[in-house]
Amino acid sequence: MSFRVTILGSASARPTGNRHPSAQVVNIHEQYYLVDAGEGTQQQLIRYGINPLKLQAVFISHLHGDHVFGLFPLISTLGLYGRRTPLAVYAPAPFGELLDHHLRYFDNDLPYQVEWHEVRTTEHSLLFENRTLEVWSVPLRHRVPCAGFLFREKQPPLNVDKFKITKYMLSIAQIAAAKRGEDLVLESGEVIPNAELTYRPYQPRSYAYLSDTNFSAKAATLCTGVDLMYHEATYAAKEQRDARDRGHSTTIDAAKAAIKAQAGRLVIGHYSSRYKDENLLVEEARTLFPETYPANEGTTFTIEKQR
Amino acid sequence: MSFRVTILGSASARPTGNRHPSAQVVNIHEQYYLVDAGEGTQQQLIRYGINPLKLQAVFISHLHGDHVFGLFPLISTLGLYGRRTPLAVYAPAPFGELLDHHLRYFDNDLPYQVEWHEVRTTEHSLLFENRTLEVWSVPLRHRVPCAGFLFREKQPPLNVDKFKITKYMLSIAQIAAAKRGEDLVLESGEVIPNAELTYRPYQPRSYAYLSDTNFSAKAATLCTGVDLMYHEATYAAKEQRDARDRGHSTTIDAAKAAIKAQAGRLVIGHYSSRYKDENLLVEEARTLFPETYPANEGTTFTIEKQR
Repeated sequence: MSFRVTILGSASARPTGNRHPSAQVVNIHEQYYLVDAGEGTQQQLIRYGINPLKLQAVFISHLHGDHVFGLFPLISTLGLYGRRTPLAVYAPAPFGELLDHHLRYFDNDLPYQVEWHEVRTTEHSLLFENRTLEVWSVPLRHRVPCAGFLFREKQPPLNVDKFKITKYMLSIAQIAAAKRGEDLVLESGEVIPNAELTYRPYQPRSYAYLSDTNFSAKAATLCTGVDLMYHEATYAAKEQRDARDRGHSTTIDAAKAAIKAQAGRLVIGHYSSRYKDENLLVEEARTLFPETYPANEGTTFTIEKQR
Repeated sequence: MSFRVTILGSASARPTGNRHPSAQVVNIHEQYYLVDAGEGTQQQLIRYGINPLKLQAVFISHLHGDHVFGLFPLISTLGLYGRRTPLAVYAPAPFGELLDHHLRYFDNDLPYQVEWHEVRTTEHSLLFENRTLEVWSVPLRHRVPCAGFLFREKQPPLNVDKFKITKYMLSIAQIAAAKRGEDLVLESGEVIPNAELTYRPYQPRSYAYLSDTNFSAKAATLCTGVDLMYHEATYAAKEQRDARDRGHSTTIDAAKAAIKAQAGRLVIGHYSSRYKDENLLVEEARTLFPETYPANEGTTFTIEKQR
């Protein structure tokens, strides 16, 4: 029942010798999702022991090169690996045109389908859903259409208390009914409320990825109660003007978003190449939001289960 | 008067955790040329201390992703750096279509020109020339149109022997005439042949880049006398069939090409991901051509001047 985020890239558009452009892998119940795909993503996956064939879906926030140039080489390599399973890509328009171009010139015999699903970047919409997970778009404020992504674990199924099974000598049918949330009616006519029989094994967990963006109270509010928030912090606080003009955030913007969302923890990244040491940025954010941590290549943030 | 080749990538199409796809930088008289540009090229440049802004021209052998996916992110970054000098790209068709697409979707306000020059991959043609260098295409045998590149230093200007200047009390005009290759006519009518007055400061040096290809005696012959030859060796000798079927070479093919060309040294690379240790491949090639060396990320091969 994993819920983990691994940072593949922490840089902004200008690369440095040791920082890679934006990319992350979200692992939820051993299903792997790629979030943004800057240049070098496939090598970073291999470096950190993540089999690229395991990727279920890709979420691209916006069509700036430092968030998407690594996707096309990855698509090619998955073909070389012989992938057969379709790969879903959630990305803003006109991603379909980029994909068509790529397939025409580089992968006209790809052995699997790449299925583009358009992300409408002005809407808070349910993009993806399976038995255990929902992924929602979060409108962001950048120079081009851009959306963040909110990964929300669904309510896990109810567990039935072992002691209550014994106490009431529940039949298999009664246990199944309790798991469905039904109350128990005893032969005496007494009603045992479902809440007395069952419990949630853990609280649903959540992760928000917010990059690239100016501070947005609306985006933060859409993520209210999130356990872990990644928010870009391209600039230090004193570069507020650069941040605003370029559609980016400062450390303080990121911290404010985490406060607004009542987030559990904040991870900052997308550092401008001018900062050799990201700890200065983390310290700044911590003045407002102490639970701030740096995105660094290879770092994994785990959200533990809580009752 | 440098003549150096730095390896940025030694891998074939499937990336590994530590090998990068094909890319090299050729430094001739402190002019920098990029040869192929697999994913991650810009970061490799920075890693090995080569300022991307110094690149004069780019030579792309063929339009497979592992040789070209790194060029587009580099083009974007040079724009961020504020490049104004045009960048010449020598590449086979339809590179122009790839470039148009890239500029339209990612760099519609690039502050410099990218000038595509078509490489006709069936011709041995002079592609590029300046005061000190010629670059020639070398037709190769791959699954798609593909050309290697032969970098040939021009004959350096004649130097006039200091002792002869004193002996014959040469005037400035006479020295200039000797540098132009003229004989000296003394007042007595005696003719001193130019060869007695002058010498070449060094022999012109040369480098051949041959990737991707089946063994080609014709390509090797076009590189006759080359000081340093890079030849792909994707496979070990026993995988000759894979090599032939996929338009690639074995270690033995590479060694044969070096022998045929009477090369000074051979560098092999483009290793299949199945080989964890490239030294096995080098040892195989050395059984035929002892002066074989491995391409490894960050390794620089220098061709020293020789009289």
